[in-house]
Amino acid sequence: MTILEPGDTGHEHTPIPSHNDRILSVQSHVAFGYVGGKAAVFPLQCMGYDVDVVNTVNFSNHTGYGCFGGTKTNAEELIRIFDTMQQSGVLVADRLLTGYIPTAESLGSVRELVKKLKLSNPNLIYLLDPVLGDSGRLYVSADCVPVYRQMLPLATIITPNWFEVEVLTEVSLTDLVSLRAALRKLHDLYHVPNVVISSIPLTKLSASVPSYLLPMQPMDGSIHAEYLICIASSINDNGNLQGQPLSTVYAGCVRLIPGYFSGVGDLFSALLLGHYHTPQSNAPLSFSTSYPPLAHAASHSLSRTHAILTLTNEFASNLCLPSTDDELDTREPERKSRRMKGRELRIIQGQDVFRRQEWDGVAMMQEWEGFWNAV
Amino acid sequence: MTILEPGDTGHEHTPIPSHNDRILSVQSHVAFGYVGGKAAVFPLQCMGYDVDVVNTVNFSNHTGYGCFGGTKTNAEELIRIFDTMQQSGVLVADRLLTGYIPTAESLGSVRELVKKLKLSNPNLIYLLDPVLGDSGRLYVSADCVPVYRQMLPLATIITPNWFEVEVLTEVSLTDLVSLRAALRKLHDLYHVPNVVISSIPLTKLSASVPSYLLPMQPMDGSIHAEYLICIASSINDNGNLQGQPLSTVYAGCVRLIPGYFSGVGDLFSALLLGHYHTPQSNAPLSFSTSYPPLAHAASHSLSRTHAILTLTNEFASNLCLPSTDDELDTREPERKSRRMKGRELRIIQGQDVFRRQEWDGVAMMQEWEGFWNAV
Repeated sequence: MTILEPGDTGHEHTPIPSHNDRILSVQSHVAFGYVGGKAAVFPLQCMGYDVDVVNTVNFSNHTGYGCFGGTKTNAEELIRIFDTMQQSGVLVADRLLTGYIPTAESLGSVRELVKKLKLSNPNLIYLLDPVLGDSGRLYVSADCVPVYRQMLPLATIITPNWFEVEVLTEVSLTDLVSLRAALRKLHDLYHVPNVVISSIPLTKLSASVPSYLLPMQPMDGSIHAEYLICIASSINDNGNLQGQPLSTVYAGCVRLIPGYFSGVGDLFSALLLGHYHTPQSNAPLSFSTSYPPLAHAASHSLSRTHAILTLTNEFASNLCLPSTDDELDTREPERKSRRMKGRELRIIQGQDVFRRQEWDGVAMMQEWEGFWNAV
Repeated sequence: MTILEPGDTGHEHTPIPSHNDRILSVQSHVAFGYVGGKAAVFPLQCMGYDVDVVNTVNFSNHTGYGCFGGTKTNAEELIRIFDTMQQSGVLVADRLLTGYIPTAESLGSVRELVKKLKLSNPNLIYLLDPVLGDSGRLYVSADCVPVYRQMLPLATIITPNWFEVEVLTEVSLTDLVSLRAALRKLHDLYHVPNVVISSIPLTKLSASVPSYLLPMQPMDGSIHAEYLICIASSINDNGNLQGQPLSTVYAGCVRLIPGYFSGVGDLFSALLLGHYHTPQSNAPLSFSTSYPPLAHAASHSLSRTHAILTLTNEFASNLCLPSTDDELDTREPERKSRRMKGRELRIIQGQDVFRRQEWDGVAMMQEWEGFWNAV
């Protein structure tokens, strides 16, 4: 018979980019489906990253199923894992990704972890997704908010949604003027260098968005309801001096895919961190771009997340899932379960979206000229 | 700017085979490194499987680092997760993979899970890796042994190592005759249809192994110390009747890669389950083989695991890691950590090994003619 000899690794043609950076992911785990770590870790592994994984909860499935259960990792347990990792010499991540952390105590232990990592590695790239809630509703305990505010100055990039920006900055967002006020607070008061808000209903800003950033569509305006706009704002080193704007803002639109999908934000944040490369960071050898690091990363993350969402939506549509109807769901719980299962992200089936470093499906975001002074 | 429209999924050329089967993996989780679920889940996801993941422990790293910590999921917590999954309608796996489960109580809850899954799905494919210990040492509590014996009749495939075969069958393995006695017990007494023992030192059996199964090497015998032999035994429907042998045995040799690597057995079992396709199971459309299901799966798993091990060994060798020396390690713990980190499986860097359904690096195992009657 043929005998395998050392050297036959059988992957002469491996296209996986070699990422020397190591990522530590601290967020939720669910047994079934793709939210939290289950939505974030596999895509980063497909990109070639070694990912260390600490689970803040171990649940059966995401909360959208109505029924869910499992255990939360309390602050002492998290501290024990982080401390033991340090004693074992394996607390060596170059990048940190944090997501859903349900209590102020556990969040506090993560805050201390970040300080510890930054002491041993001042170049740590930290993407903080301040998971607080959505559309007016908190889904962590309220005392997490002040702890997140303490953590903002430690972050390299934050990815709040529209609601989370309002909660963190206490600015109610209605238009471009209030968005500027909120961004100024995040950049100036909390010293966050990079802010990405990924899914703002275009109608909230379209009145102020330069036409070259808008979708090429019959401009009756109505069409804007079918789009989301993503904003990536990077602070300028000498912002506000010599009349330089506080930050450089890039923007891009994607079509809104109707219906609720869980884990989209978790996937977006993971890809954003995975595609963020500065001259100081370990980019793949083949990597090159003329784009600023945040705009490059946000463009790739936005396009690749959208591709997975599209794939998921096509799959869900073909299943002819039961419509949302609380009354029918209550009478027949299996209805809701079928709908939820059918809308789980198709990250396994779409994994090539993550693996190709170059992909012509990426729509590059454009600079929003005059963001800070337009009327 | 370019706008992404639904339909631009950007993966027209996706080579990922579509596996309709869904796998539930119940084993250990470590934050850092690749053992248990961290060694098993990613390769199965690369193969195109949706994998549901229940963590029996949440540890910092594997025990080889000397220092490790975290939490164990107790029986009640496991039962809560399994029950909630059922209530949510997401306990729907077609295949089950179980590994490290540290206590008899938690193992008992997994035994009940298997019964429940088999009730709802009589075609469940269950790969049971009876993780008990290695080279004479148990690393689960001793009262797990009788529970594993109760579970053996529920399994489709088991993957004990040499030591675990001895513990489960109470047969001390010294040669082919004792190996036959142990296999007879597993097939006949415990009704296990498929048994794979993946890394038997060839010297233990070489005297009885037909020459066509042996490595093509100068036959002075000494060379055999450098090889392992893998045995895959499938029970025959009418075994022992009409003089038919009890089982059909396939075997294959691979070069021994010196030094200890953690997680190899976990990776091997995962790939074995992933490559096991019967006429009843959901094989990828493109799948076809003239081989018996177990021999096919064992050949692919053995070759692909060996490829990852080879890649890992090359990487470790280039690092010039500190040698094993307990005294020096005690004086300078960082030595041991560096050695351990350097020997973590390179499953991320070698991921293409899992993705290609066809790969000429696979050495197909051969049937061991007359296994049951040779002297």
